[in-house]
Amino acid sequence: MSDDLSIRLLQINAQVGDVAGNLQRVLAAIESARDDGVDVIVTPELALTGYPPEDLLLRPAMTNQVLNALSEIEAASQGLTVVVGTPFPIPVTEPNPWPLGAVTAGPPRLYNSALIYTDGAHVARYDKQGLPNYQVFDERRYFEPGHAPVVVSVKGRRLAILICEDVWVPEVVAESCQGAVDCLLVLNASPFAEGKHDERIRHVEHRAIQNRCPIAYVNLVGAQDELVFDGGSFVIDAVGGRVGQATFFEESNLDFQLQADRVACAQQAALLSPDEALYRALVLGVSDYFAKTGFSRALLGLSGGIDSALTLAVAVDALGADRVHAVMMPYRYTADISVEDAKQQADVLGCEFSVVSIESMVDDFMTGLAPFFEGHPIDTTEENLQSRCRGVLLMALSNKTGALVLTTGNKSEMAVGYATLYGDMAGGFAVLKDVWKTRVYELARFVNRDREVIPERVIVRPPSAELAPDQEDSDSLPPYDQLDTMLKRYIEDDWSPEDIIADGFAAEDVRRMCRLVDVNEYKRRQAAIGPRVTVRGFGRDRRYPIAHRFKA
Amino acid sequence: MSDDLSIRLLQINAQVGDVAGNLQRVLAAIESARDDGVDVIVTPELALTGYPPEDLLLRPAMTNQVLNALSEIEAASQGLTVVVGTPFPIPVTEPNPWPLGAVTAGPPRLYNSALIYTDGAHVARYDKQGLPNYQVFDERRYFEPGHAPVVVSVKGRRLAILICEDVWVPEVVAESCQGAVDCLLVLNASPFAEGKHDERIRHVEHRAIQNRCPIAYVNLVGAQDELVFDGGSFVIDAVGGRVGQATFFEESNLDFQLQADRVACAQQAALLSPDEALYRALVLGVSDYFAKTGFSRALLGLSGGIDSALTLAVAVDALGADRVHAVMMPYRYTADISVEDAKQQADVLGCEFSVVSIESMVDDFMTGLAPFFEGHPIDTTEENLQSRCRGVLLMALSNKTGALVLTTGNKSEMAVGYATLYGDMAGGFAVLKDVWKTRVYELARFVNRDREVIPERVIVRPPSAELAPDQEDSDSLPPYDQLDTMLKRYIEDDWSPEDIIADGFAAEDVRRMCRLVDVNEYKRRQAAIGPRVTVRGFGRDRRYPIAHRFKA
Repeated sequence: MSDDLSIRLLQINAQVGDVAGNLQRVLAAIESARDDGVDVIVTPELALTGYPPEDLLLRPAMTNQVLNALSEIEAASQGLTVVVGTPFPIPVTEPNPWPLGAVTAGPPRLYNSALIYTDGAHVARYDKQGLPNYQVFDERRYFEPGHAPVVVSVKGRRLAILICEDVWVPEVVAESCQGAVDCLLVLNASPFAEGKHDERIRHVEHRAIQNRCPIAYVNLVGAQDELVFDGGSFVIDAVGGRVGQATFFEESNLDFQLQADRVACAQQAALLSPDEALYRALVLGVSDYFAKTGFSRALLGLSGGIDSALTLAVAVDALGADRVHAVMMPYRYTADISVEDAKQQADVLGCEFSVVSIESMVDDFMTGLAPFFEGHPIDTTEENLQSRCRGVLLMALSNKTGALVLTTGNKSEMAVGYATLYGDMAGGFAVLKDVWKTRVYELARFVNRDREVIPERVIVRPPSAELAPDQEDSDSLPPYDQLDTMLKRYIEDDWSPEDIIADGFAAEDVRRMCRLVDVNEYKRRQAAIGPRVTVRGFGRDRRYPIAHRFKA
Repeated sequence: MSDDLSIRLLQINAQVGDVAGNLQRVLAAIESARDDGVDVIVTPELALTGYPPEDLLLRPAMTNQVLNALSEIEAASQGLTVVVGTPFPIPVTEPNPWPLGAVTAGPPRLYNSALIYTDGAHVARYDKQGLPNYQVFDERRYFEPGHAPVVVSVKGRRLAILICEDVWVPEVVAESCQGAVDCLLVLNASPFAEGKHDERIRHVEHRAIQNRCPIAYVNLVGAQDELVFDGGSFVIDAVGGRVGQATFFEESNLDFQLQADRVACAQQAALLSPDEALYRALVLGVSDYFAKTGFSRALLGLSGGIDSALTLAVAVDALGADRVHAVMMPYRYTADISVEDAKQQADVLGCEFSVVSIESMVDDFMTGLAPFFEGHPIDTTEENLQSRCRGVLLMALSNKTGALVLTTGNKSEMAVGYATLYGDMAGGFAVLKDVWKTRVYELARFVNRDREVIPERVIVRPPSAELAPDQEDSDSLPPYDQLDTMLKRYIEDDWSPEDIIADGFAAEDVRRMCRLVDVNEYKRRQAAIGPRVTVRGFGRDRRYPIAHRFKA
């Protein structure tokens, strides 16, 4: 036996609310770790409840289940040390550290904790101090902050524990590393966003160097509603070297050893290119949404355009071609090449493909509506009607067959409301909801890196909704490269329209697009959820009033 | 001149984001107050931005507008004292009172403040200490807490200032009232819920008595998205007497005088019955949503059932009969009496009424879908199709005429998913979204208190969705009085199904209904917003994951 301390980071896919299932995951990991001679195992943040459990945390029954699960883990921890992330009810004997905590009467008062068990006994409890309450996070809705570091000794090594946000607060890290700590273990539930993994590594390297302390970062993996957790757990040594890197977007154990004079780790998974990371985030977003809601088959409208083409590619990679049904629903404005291209992609991918014309349905509605429309000029009403007939068809197929409808709109369209509520917005999961149109094109190229999955013509032809004769997106929107940049600055960076104009964009375009963003909040509020992959998605992340008169 | 101090509570309807407009409201109030010889005016919480401004607070341009508005108020405060609620950027010279505040980099760091100006000069600033971050509130997302009471002297009277949540924290009230305070002024943005006003009065009376200090409570009025602020500002004297009461659901000034030995107030508006309060909350919810989003006309499907009947009554009271269009869309399962009753109510109210059959549209979809439906039994797909054809019709009328579609589902239905996504759920505002079915019946009786607005037959016939032959709600749901009680306990009180069963309900019903609540979160997530009138509505108030496996 060496004096090395062997630590295993459990990069697991915990399911929200499934305390029994998550407990089984941890118990199984304890078994294997003991078999493998591992000394310490560490789960991600809130591994027992999944992340984020949201208002399930307000249910007293949830707390009871968690406490029972912890008893089982405690009993199972023979022969090793288990560090498990979990909500924990604040013991009534502890003073309320939150001056105004008493205000929120009713639900259980909780910490976001890590429980540490060794050899069948409770050793310590660390309570998360930094509670993020911004972006998609609402932790101060549920938790009260802890107020002290925790260091435990295992085989003579001193291990400090932190949870997620804590490691981003220099003072908290420094306090935890005081007094010859041998390794800092950080339990995380850090969602994916483009560039986020680089940011984590850079930051944690900096903290390791500054505190001369190795840091092990274990992240959750798996998708939960709009969040995608990318895994990619890693270990940084005391001089800032990334000595171990787990894989991304899949469950994995990352084992490392604290040796006398170094941190050793055999696993060094490759980092992903930006396109591959984004694409795999979307694929995991879809596959986990289906797995966790119990759907097995997907249905989508394939229009011959690039958004539905990319959505189909993602769906097939997530679910398999035999579980995806693409439906082309032509109308008189649909170009022949749209039908051809749609069929070609479905054939290449080998998924079910159907064509259902909406001609007679649209005409029937127009007949019924004629008395009301008399004297009114043609406008977007007629376009929306086509889109809604398609929505009704897809939903009927969905209801009858149990397949979930995927919507295909991208972030640029969702931003300016270039979509029909109850039409192309009808569906359960919006795959590209947080992907800018310019990234849609880049991902289409990524999909085609080895073979032409998406017909080249779909990528190169001018984008069109095909809801009116000879319609092109550029009739009503600026070119997408310009549009995406101005929208990013308005939506993700909170620039004012004047700032964006000063940066060199056409004033009229900027004002019109920002206004479209403002007035289309009502559409986004009724949109399907979809995977968040940017720093600010249209979901829990961006909370705007519908009725407001703010003009920046 | 007496030594009395005259104070005016400004129960105003501030519009979210409309800093310029809200500034004008305050400036106008300053003018009249000066004319009326008032010494002190007090606005509701965040009067300059409206409440809740949500993520508009993250925009630096909003902060700039607020600071400019405050300069104007300061200059205008000649001859009196102005207490105005507003977000306020934390001066860089002030230490960060929040140990982990540095984590949330980027957006402006703000207090939720009351600025006090007298005679053209800044006198003091109070920063809210209790920041609610539960139910519909997200104040810790935007604000950092203040840490000290503020007392200002006006004409020798000592006035302490608190903001909303603060008054619910006994320690904070006690600290503010130390040292011979003559009156506590509380700025509020307290949303309506059934029974809430009684709770406010009881609590504030208690605080007044305990601290031997009069308390003036000024509340916002008006609706903002799903929140309805009911106004009802009031003044409690030092022995707990409610000496002044403003009206409800409308703008109003409440004037009172601090005299040598008493608090005097001439206004004592009547409290409202529970039914009247709820009904007026719905009416204000509708009228303000239209006013604040710029819609002038409403459209709704009138089915002959009680939900759409009540929705129509509310819409007509909110907007006037000439701005409401009721559309009956019969199919073969629609009873003749449904068409008759719908027409009768529209006639009584004097609003536009149309009949459009969905027969041919439904048949056309069935024809197009026949190849896919072959071999599948009839199920709810066919029911949803009828509902969706109605949704398409209403949305086409809405798009063409600019009228906003009101949806008519109630809270009991939204809870168990007894509604069709993109069908009867299609629309911009869900009037009864937070009204339990049993309350729908009570409100229908309230509407008919003076004359039969809602045909008696609509109230007494067994409820039915009329989507299949001889269908009644009771075929698939427990009686509504039982259903509502079990749902309230599950949804509003966080009871587990076992607790509800133990309380005397049929186990099978309870388990089935709770499961329906769980699995229909995806529908609610895409539902239109509607006025929150209970302690836990289906909006910002209840944040549940869609994909979860929690079983209580």
